[in-house]
Amino acid sequence: MARRAYGRQSQKSGQDPGTLVHVGEPSSDKATLVVTLFDETAVSRTETSDVSVLEELKGRPGNLWVDLHRLHQVPLVEAIGNCFQIHHLVLEDILNTTHRPNVESYDDYIFVSLKMLDYEAGHEGISSRQISLVIGSRFLLSFQEKEPDPFDILRQRLESPNSKVRRAGPDYLAYCMLDTVIDNYFVVLDKMAERIERLEEELLKNPGTETLRVLHRVKTDLILLRRSVWPVRELASRLINEDSPLIKDSTRPYLRDLFDHTIHAVDTLETFRDIVSGMLDIYLSGVNNRLNEVMKVLTVIATIFMPLTFIAGWYGMNFKYMPELESPWGYPAVIVVSLVVVVSMLLFFRHKRWI
Amino acid sequence: MARRAYGRQSQKSGQDPGTLVHVGEPSSDKATLVVTLFDETAVSRTETSDVSVLEELKGRPGNLWVDLHRLHQVPLVEAIGNCFQIHHLVLEDILNTTHRPNVESYDDYIFVSLKMLDYEAGHEGISSRQISLVIGSRFLLSFQEKEPDPFDILRQRLESPNSKVRRAGPDYLAYCMLDTVIDNYFVVLDKMAERIERLEEELLKNPGTETLRVLHRVKTDLILLRRSVWPVRELASRLINEDSPLIKDSTRPYLRDLFDHTIHAVDTLETFRDIVSGMLDIYLSGVNNRLNEVMKVLTVIATIFMPLTFIAGWYGMNFKYMPELESPWGYPAVIVVSLVVVVSMLLFFRHKRWI
Amino acid sequence: MARRAYGRQSQKSGQDPGTLVHVGEPSSDKATLVVTLFDETAVSRTETSDVSVLEELKGRPGNLWVDLHRLHQVPLVEAIGNCFQIHHLVLEDILNTTHRPNVESYDDYIFVSLKMLDYEAGHEGISSRQISLVIGSRFLLSFQEKEPDPFDILRQRLESPNSKVRRAGPDYLAYCMLDTVIDNYFVVLDKMAERIERLEEELLKNPGTETLRVLHRVKTDLILLRRSVWPVRELASRLINEDSPLIKDSTRPYLRDLFDHTIHAVDTLETFRDIVSGMLDIYLSGVNNRLNEVMKVLTVIATIFMPLTFIAGWYGMNFKYMPELESPWGYPAVIVVSLVVVVSMLLFFRHKRWI
Amino acid sequence: MARRAYGRQSQKSGQDPGTLVHVGEPSSDKATLVVTLFDETAVSRTETSDVSVLEELKGRPGNLWVDLHRLHQVPLVEAIGNCFQIHHLVLEDILNTTHRPNVESYDDYIFVSLKMLDYEAGHEGISSRQISLVIGSRFLLSFQEKEPDPFDILRQRLESPNSKVRRAGPDYLAYCMLDTVIDNYFVVLDKMAERIERLEEELLKNPGTETLRVLHRVKTDLILLRRSVWPVRELASRLINEDSPLIKDSTRPYLRDLFDHTIHAVDTLETFRDIVSGMLDIYLSGVNNRLNEVMKVLTVIATIFMPLTFIAGWYGMNFKYMPELESPWGYPAVIVVSLVVVVSMLLFFRHKRWI
Amino acid sequence: MARRAYGRQSQKSGQDPGTLVHVGEPSSDKATLVVTLFDETAVSRTETSDVSVLEELKGRPGNLWVDLHRLHQVPLVEAIGNCFQIHHLVLEDILNTTHRPNVESYDDYIFVSLKMLDYEAGHEGISSRQISLVIGSRFLLSFQEKEPDPFDILRQRLESPNSKVRRAGPDYLAYCMLDTVIDNYFVVLDKMAERIERLEEELLKNPGTETLRVLHRVKTDLILLRRSVWPVRELASRLINEDSPLIKDSTRPYLRDLFDHTIHAVDTLETFRDIVSGMLDIYLSGVNNRLNEVMKVLTVIATIFMPLTFIAGWYGMNFKYMPELESPWGYPAVIVVSLVVVVSMLLFFRHKRWI
Repeated sequence: MARRAYGRQSQKSGQDPGTLVHVGEPSSDKATLVVTLFDETAVSRTETSDVSVLEELKGRPGNLWVDLHRLHQVPLVEAIGNCFQIHHLVLEDILNTTHRPNVESYDDYIFVSLKMLDYEAGHEGISSRQISLVIGSRFLLSFQEKEPDPFDILRQRLESPNSKVRRAGPDYLAYCMLDTVIDNYFVVLDKMAERIERLEEELLKNPGTETLRVLHRVKTDLILLRRSVWPVRELASRLINEDSPLIKDSTRPYLRDLFDHTIHAVDTLETFRDIVSGMLDIYLSGVNNRLNEVMKVLTVIATIFMPLTFIAGWYGMNFKYMPELESPWGYPAVIVVSLVVVVSMLLFFRHKRWI
Repeated sequence: MARRAYGRQSQKSGQDPGTLVHVGEPSSDKATLVVTLFDETAVSRTETSDVSVLEELKGRPGNLWVDLHRLHQVPLVEAIGNCFQIHHLVLEDILNTTHRPNVESYDDYIFVSLKMLDYEAGHEGISSRQISLVIGSRFLLSFQEKEPDPFDILRQRLESPNSKVRRAGPDYLAYCMLDTVIDNYFVVLDKMAERIERLEEELLKNPGTETLRVLHRVKTDLILLRRSVWPVRELASRLINEDSPLIKDSTRPYLRDLFDHTIHAVDTLETFRDIVSGMLDIYLSGVNNRLNEVMKVLTVIATIFMPLTFIAGWYGMNFKYMPELESPWGYPAVIVVSLVVVVSMLLFFRHKRWI
Repeated sequence: MARRAYGRQSQKSGQDPGTLVHVGEPSSDKATLVVTLFDETAVSRTETSDVSVLEELKGRPGNLWVDLHRLHQVPLVEAIGNCFQIHHLVLEDILNTTHRPNVESYDDYIFVSLKMLDYEAGHEGISSRQISLVIGSRFLLSFQEKEPDPFDILRQRLESPNSKVRRAGPDYLAYCMLDTVIDNYFVVLDKMAERIERLEEELLKNPGTETLRVLHRVKTDLILLRRSVWPVRELASRLINEDSPLIKDSTRPYLRDLFDHTIHAVDTLETFRDIVSGMLDIYLSGVNNRLNEVMKVLTVIATIFMPLTFIAGWYGMNFKYMPELESPWGYPAVIVVSLVVVVSMLLFFRHKRWI
Repeated sequence: MARRAYGRQSQKSGQDPGTLVHVGEPSSDKATLVVTLFDETAVSRTETSDVSVLEELKGRPGNLWVDLHRLHQVPLVEAIGNCFQIHHLVLEDILNTTHRPNVESYDDYIFVSLKMLDYEAGHEGISSRQISLVIGSRFLLSFQEKEPDPFDILRQRLESPNSKVRRAGPDYLAYCMLDTVIDNYFVVLDKMAERIERLEEELLKNPGTETLRVLHRVKTDLILLRRSVWPVRELASRLINEDSPLIKDSTRPYLRDLFDHTIHAVDTLETFRDIVSGMLDIYLSGVNNRLNEVMKVLTVIATIFMPLTFIAGWYGMNFKYMPELESPWGYPAVIVVSLVVVVSMLLFFRHKRWI
Repeated sequence: MARRAYGRQSQKSGQDPGTLVHVGEPSSDKATLVVTLFDETAVSRTETSDVSVLEELKGRPGNLWVDLHRLHQVPLVEAIGNCFQIHHLVLEDILNTTHRPNVESYDDYIFVSLKMLDYEAGHEGISSRQISLVIGSRFLLSFQEKEPDPFDILRQRLESPNSKVRRAGPDYLAYCMLDTVIDNYFVVLDKMAERIERLEEELLKNPGTETLRVLHRVKTDLILLRRSVWPVRELASRLINEDSPLIKDSTRPYLRDLFDHTIHAVDTLETFRDIVSGMLDIYLSGVNNRLNEVMKVLTVIATIFMPLTFIAGWYGMNFKYMPELESPWGYPAVIVVSLVVVVSMLLFFRHKRWI
């Protein structure tokens, strides 16, 4: 799991700073580029893998949204970067999918990068993929590490003539994308809540070694979730306080709302961590409790039968001269003594509340 | 319990930001709207479910208090919002009852949302319901997630001609409402204190598996309480420092007092958490202590009877040639040896302070 | 104990904010009012329960110190408040003895409230009572929740003609009172140190269930102490930085010294908490260690006698055809085998360092 | 390991402040000085151990990079310091290789010191060596505690005519060096991730005493790593905010990128610490679980055979008068009773879910 | 140990603020006063116990260093205070040797107090003694609680004509003294590192009850060390930022270096605490591991011999009618069955990896 927390950042080590390298899982699929030109009156969409189209569209009036779905084709990313005059370091960060969420403000654009989270029902784990946005005054670039594309719904909204997203500019569109990503965090948190609840029931009813293993996995997942969600809080706060004309005043209340959502997510996460960390203590106490119970059974059995076995053994001795053996009252007396031993032991255990 | 900490925020996921959806438990009861128009000289109260009444009352002199008791009728909330020109995002937050306490300042009003807490005696748990306030210069809107209505007492106070709440404006009325909510926190904390004390007694007298379960539940309840109470502290502090003409200077000392109360509540909560977290350690130590005691009993019994049983078994052997068996002193000698074994074992255990 | 941390704040819940109610233990004793009028040249002391005397003394030149010893007579507190024009909220805080230490600055006076701590030798616990001060430019009001009166020594100092407290004004007198209260914290900390040291000795020498109980009590006492002492730190810091003419510059170095004392107290408290929290770990390790020892004794005994008992049982079998039983070397051979078993087991345990 | 965390700082104790002493491992190798003079048009490299060469090169146009590979020759360091007018305290810090990472700004230069980390595959540990930089307006001094030299790659880049590092000044060259060092942190973190993952697998599959030992070593390594990496975060942040003409505006985005990398490293480290600290709990729970299992086996065996052995012993008694022994149904009856005992015990354990 | 953390501050309780009382260990030795008058050209040293000498020396040109070696003679301290017009509260703090490290700035002097630490090899503990400095523009007062005098080396440096300490003023001399004290912290930390390392080895090789005791003592020592070292960090930082002409600009880089040293010391201390706190977990796990091993031995022995003993007991029964006993194959069959039991048990344990 530690590897997942990390993601082989060292692929890049030893390179010249500024060298563009794709850090992440390699892929052989073809990258697609979805370009949408929109303003209040019209929307046109083009799917291409030829960057020269961008140069042409950039000149036209309206806002341009360039959406790249796979990052492994480094030259394509570089070409888009050159077309919109994006700093080399930004392109580097876009390509490095192991990086932590971040926001960076430049003169002509704001760079935002964060993680889209997916809950994988199959093996009950969380996977993440990076989403990077570059917000300009009249363009928005979005780079997605992997499919599926969560922004299809936005494209549909852009089509409808009176939608706010079409009237507003790239900053509001970027907000919509961030909102989609953060709303998705709550879906993942919801799944985690279910999982924690199931674990809680199991813990109180029937805990075993498997419970411990699941507990460990949930704990590690929360640690990794935290790593993706925490920085988004700071990211949102910095976007609000960004003193840049790229973010219009009418968009700021929405960003503030976004910030509230991230705080809520972080808060929920911390609550989960508190609950789960308490669960291990409960587990440990439960294990100790059961050990106690096992030991009580053993002690009760041993304490009752050891004296009895001794008595039986005693009169199994073969001494020539043992007067008790000859007596007709010997056997009944031993029976009585044995019963007394059993009853007094039982009373002792009852007194100790062991049975 | 994790679910309770969370409340299915994901109901909203995938929606257009700004879409009004009620996030919370659905209900089929009819929503009631209690509208109070008051100034120093007169008070009039209307119960209605027709929003057009509001438009008419808004025009009249005096302060208007609009109190909505159930949130599930989204169009009603939207109509009230339109009537007082409330931002779409505020209405969204009012309807989302899973949101954390918050304060948001707009040009013409301040939006405050927090949780009313109820201690449910039946199953010893805490439930919460959301209270949202919108404070304007001449109006106050209050939205309650569920009944019962804690503000009945305020309506009574408004009736009495010389009450301060009637002379003062909507800001003081809002303060009174916040004060009611926070005073109620102390009732809940009081119940928690009783519960913790009962648990403490049980822990030192007669701890068992059930104690552990209750301990876990108390701990989780404190985590959830913290989630509702902590943000109120920040909320109160921001209300004090709010540089808005909507909050009159004469109201500020009251808000400062409110802030002191929230700090006291938070403080008490933290103290509870410290005490409860120490209790688990005590429990664990107690379990270990009892295990120790059980083991001592077992060891004492085994250590006394094992050598005795061996001796008895030894002379139960059937060898033809065993001189001791023939001797008349054999049996008395074995009795003496057995007594020596028992006494020396008892002395050994006394020395070890096990008995 | 949790109740002690809390003190039934909820007595007030549901009241109109500003209603004066005594929150604390009720009492039927008569409240006494000790009024001291002093300046550089003269001192006069009056004991009364009639507030009208105050009005008369207020008019005279000199500084006025009004000291009320019991709070349960609400009308008396209200009358004093009216006489010196104290805000309603301040009177409320004076009467609510469960409140946390606080400082509040008003135009004409500064309100300070903190806890006097007493170590009760009898049942080794700490009790607290509230002291509230209202510092005006020419008057000082002090309200004590309960007796005994720790400020008697100050009255004596006021009597001596050249004492600094007489020459200085109400602010220095207030400092002297705070200094008395905080000096007393060190007496309580001293007692705690003794108790912790005794506990430490017991822990390393002869720990038992009672030790655990005492440990829990000491831990809870430290949590409660912390609750009283921590806020005083912030209180002192705010008094120093108070930009008010009510506090003369010559008094500030003394307040700074007071602040250093509170930091020292807080520091000592944290050190105690660290030491005590480490002690529980030691206790737990000790319990486990002893369990280990018990188990070793059991194992050694069982491992030696079980094979022996088996051997003895074996030759106790009644088979017709058992050649060993007939042989004259049978019995000596069994003796030799038994000795070999005992010696080899002992060597095994010595190797394992169990004996 | 504690010693490694510390490094014998006390070698210096008792010395006059400002005395230059090499604090670190002594060495007898000869120190080499690699001096590179570069500007946009030309590069020349000299290897020497004669400081007078520096004086001569300092006068020439272009930027000067002086790289010293071993610190133990104090006079050499002092001579370099004098040549570039470096403060005595800076030279002291350069020579003290146990010091923590730091940045110090002087009028004519900025002093930066941090740790290069190496993962030693042999005994799975981390070693560190100090790198100190002095950034002037036209010179850069670098002091390395030990070999190997990680900056060889930079020298190669300087050779290529159009490299950015050649066009830019000493500040960008310093950035490249810091970037190399911090990139290397990720290599070390990668190795740690592998080690933690191996440990995790072992923990869940087959934990033993050795696992505990490795866990302890990993934990200590993370503590030491933290000590080297944490201060670099602050160091990077201070370099960005440094208001000095020595750092050109074009270099600042690179430093910001560097800062992001250090945050990422610190973040990863904290995640590792969280995961590893959870692992010890899992280990402890696992040990307890296995103890439980062992005890169950013992209890099952004892509980089945003790009653049986007692029954067998009972009818081994030699009483003259025992009617059961005479009966032909005696033996079959005992067989039946024994079977009943065994079956009922097995059912009891099945009910308890022990088998 | 808790007492050592505390030091009986309550000796002073109940006193008039400003009363000079020596809080610390009483002594009957005579206090000595070493007065050094120095400037760039000359140095003269006087040992006296007569304060009037000071008055005379104060008038002469040059810097005056007054060094008092024992504090118990309160009048002497008071006389020195009067001679240099030191505030009463400062003298009080000088005499109270239980106080925490502090810096206080007055108009004509700066007061600094901190702890000199000594590692006592004999019983492996740390003792501390207070050093107080009063830095004036032309004088430096130093008060040492106890001997030995660590500043002898400074006096020797003052004798040498060209030493920096002689050319610089009282502020640099004070820096040298602080540097001596803080350098000594590293000697103590070095000893702690050795002790922790020894403990670590013992822990992994051969842990016992004594190990636990030493661990507790080391932990408590680290807590107490922290108490002395932490405030020095803040102290150094405040000295750097002190906006006072008493500290010359040329001294500031040295103070900054001092600050770096204190951060390094604090850092090392925290690392030690982390390592030691991890060691207790290791100890506990080790104890549990060994318990496990003991239980396995017991279980293996019991599980092998209990069935065997039962078989032997079974054929020891004295029933008249037991066909097996008569058969010639009875005994060999029992031998075979017993061997099968032993072998199958051994295979079972091998499978469980217990042997």
